[in-house]
Amino acid sequence: MTAATDTFLSSRWVAAPAGVIEADPGRLAPGFRAGGAACGLKGGGATDVGVVACDGDEVTSALLLTRNAAAAAPIRVCREHCDADGIRAAVVNSGNANAATGDQGFLDALEMQAATADALGIDPRAVAVAETGKIGVPLPVDDVLSGIGRAAAGLSREAGGAFADSIMTTDRSRKACTLELGGVTLSAQAKGAGMIEPGFATMLCFVQTDAVIADADAVLRAAVASSFERITVDGQMSTNDMVLLQASGGSARPLPDGLLDAALLQLALEIVADGEGASRTARVQVDEAATAEEAERVARAIANSPLVKTALLGRDPNWGRISQAAGMALAGERVEELGPDRIDAAGLGTDEPEAEIAIRLGRGPAGTHVYFCDLTKDYVELNAEYST
Amino acid sequence: MTAATDTFLSSRWVAAPAGVIEADPGRLAPGFRAGGAACGLKGGGATDVGVVACDGDEVTSALLLTRNAAAAAPIRVCREHCDADGIRAAVVNSGNANAATGDQGFLDALEMQAATADALGIDPRAVAVAETGKIGVPLPVDDVLSGIGRAAAGLSREAGGAFADSIMTTDRSRKACTLELGGVTLSAQAKGAGMIEPGFATMLCFVQTDAVIADADAVLRAAVASSFERITVDGQMSTNDMVLLQASGGSARPLPDGLLDAALLQLALEIVADGEGASRTARVQVDEAATAEEAERVARAIANSPLVKTALLGRDPNWGRISQAAGMALAGERVEELGPDRIDAAGLGTDEPEAEIAIRLGRGPAGTHVYFCDLTKDYVELNAEYST
Repeated sequence: MTAATDTFLSSRWVAAPAGVIEADPGRLAPGFRAGGAACGLKGGGATDVGVVACDGDEVTSALLLTRNAAAAAPIRVCREHCDADGIRAAVVNSGNANAATGDQGFLDALEMQAATADALGIDPRAVAVAETGKIGVPLPVDDVLSGIGRAAAGLSREAGGAFADSIMTTDRSRKACTLELGGVTLSAQAKGAGMIEPGFATMLCFVQTDAVIADADAVLRAAVASSFERITVDGQMSTNDMVLLQASGGSARPLPDGLLDAALLQLALEIVADGEGASRTARVQVDEAATAEEAERVARAIANSPLVKTALLGRDPNWGRISQAAGMALAGERVEELGPDRIDAAGLGTDEPEAEIAIRLGRGPAGTHVYFCDLTKDYVELNAEYST
Repeated sequence: MTAATDTFLSSRWVAAPAGVIEADPGRLAPGFRAGGAACGLKGGGATDVGVVACDGDEVTSALLLTRNAAAAAPIRVCREHCDADGIRAAVVNSGNANAATGDQGFLDALEMQAATADALGIDPRAVAVAETGKIGVPLPVDDVLSGIGRAAAGLSREAGGAFADSIMTTDRSRKACTLELGGVTLSAQAKGAGMIEPGFATMLCFVQTDAVIADADAVLRAAVASSFERITVDGQMSTNDMVLLQASGGSARPLPDGLLDAALLQLALEIVADGEGASRTARVQVDEAATAEEAERVARAIANSPLVKTALLGRDPNWGRISQAAGMALAGERVEELGPDRIDAAGLGTDEPEAEIAIRLGRGPAGTHVYFCDLTKDYVELNAEYST
């Protein structure tokens, strides 16, 4: 779960492209610089404001945002006041989600965007805004603007670590990587530990690369579909999710196949492993569904079942709970009995940190998989005693 | 949560019909007799087989069954081999759900039905079969048949308590009542401590009355729609759920308005209050939804959100989590900001055992409500440490 060199692409579920080199995750891809500052949102001097920017103006980008209908102010600013394919810089804070904060919150997020654009001398529409933290708390915008000024004044290619810190909330560790392959460098920073699920997870992720990417939106959507769209911690879609891909083209080389996918899947799995209170992760494979939608529904029902999640915690190879959850997802359908011949629950009972379970529905050709984590007393304690 | 006389209709959310009398819950409605026996499924000499029967053959009945596609053998027997409107008797066991037990399980459930019919001298199609307990464990059918023989041999109108015991699994207390109103008696027994429990499954409810009920199915569906259909413990649909209403007509009087509704809602709320590990219950009211379906979706999203459930535990009036859950349920829709002017979360922060929260969506005329309980460390412990 650390992001230390040579240990990043560590999951059994990640196919590392041949020849990939894990570089210092604190050092961004060429042509990108970042900075972080403390403005008091998180307290204790913790870094809670960050800026990441592309030096050149030839950047191509793609921006994916939460579909939550109670989307936070920064999400609405990104939707309405950004050119998603031409994002030069992103400004972030952690500690305050600026969600459900009314018109003032929206104006505050716009001010963050304007201040960043001003500091960098670029168009405000080229600045994405991301925030994460408590919902419904007015943003102390002057403190944040002051932090933006300091972060923007100290931009450095070596500040990947500070930027990764600036987006963390309840994360137990930094989630970041810098990968090199085929003459291309890709760096990425993510956060997320709770309120993680669909429409891609509750999380933030920023990716910088010097590769040439013609259709950044399609490339990002494909990589997110097999990573952040495949995970759940607690089935809760966030108000603030964002994934940003920026490509400078500085290497004059294409993005190597599988590089972005490996980086995002490993980051996604780190989010699951760092799920609030989580002690184990698992992958559920659903096969022989009638349709892709049905496979998805069954996989989500299993991955989000508190009974399956506590069986994962308790190392109980309880196929009955998988059968019940699948049966719930298929309510009203005619299904052959979902017994032990169709369900592999052995992984639940092992000591492996990454468990595998599977079910065959016997209804058709469709399949999918979802990654999830266990439900622990620590999850209850964190969320009963900590106000988000 | 006890079912003692005079304390049954105790919830703030239950409207007790004027003049209703709470009688001894151990004494069934006139014309009905029950019996219980121990056959070793639960061990320790606990009552785990039960029979309830109507003396006369003029009974009208209605039978509602789980829609779970992985429905247990007894559910399939009820679907395929019962006359739902002419159920004279029900046979139950607790300790083994007889779910995902293949063809043998189905034959075992048929044998239970046949043995009960034989002992009572009635048509097998007039006998409903219910089971609850571990999933995927072969039923020791000979032991169960022996228990059925003993239970059927000792039928008594005074055995409501023994029958209520025969359906309990992880329930902390009996859930039963006998109510009198307008010359009519209605007795009911229920069990349930999770939509599905650890390897255990189910809510079961049996209702006996001497009222005259012309359309038992419509009457039962309406009462269930405002009681058992309004609750959630962990969002898990069971493989074994069943509700049976039997009316003998012996009183020659109609069912008084509100009597069945009050009984079933109180029983439903006892199931929520007895939810695994639960310490508090709550009611979420959703108003101003665009459609009834939308109201239901939002209410379920809030009631099943682990973040809202832990806020209920932590006495945290966290309207942001309600906003987030509603926003997830409305993903992709245009919604005015779901801020504190639209959300009443104060109940979460009180010490009331029955908390009330509410949200107005500002989208239309539809509304609904759902009852739920908190998520506690005890839920995690019960479900992680129980091994099948």
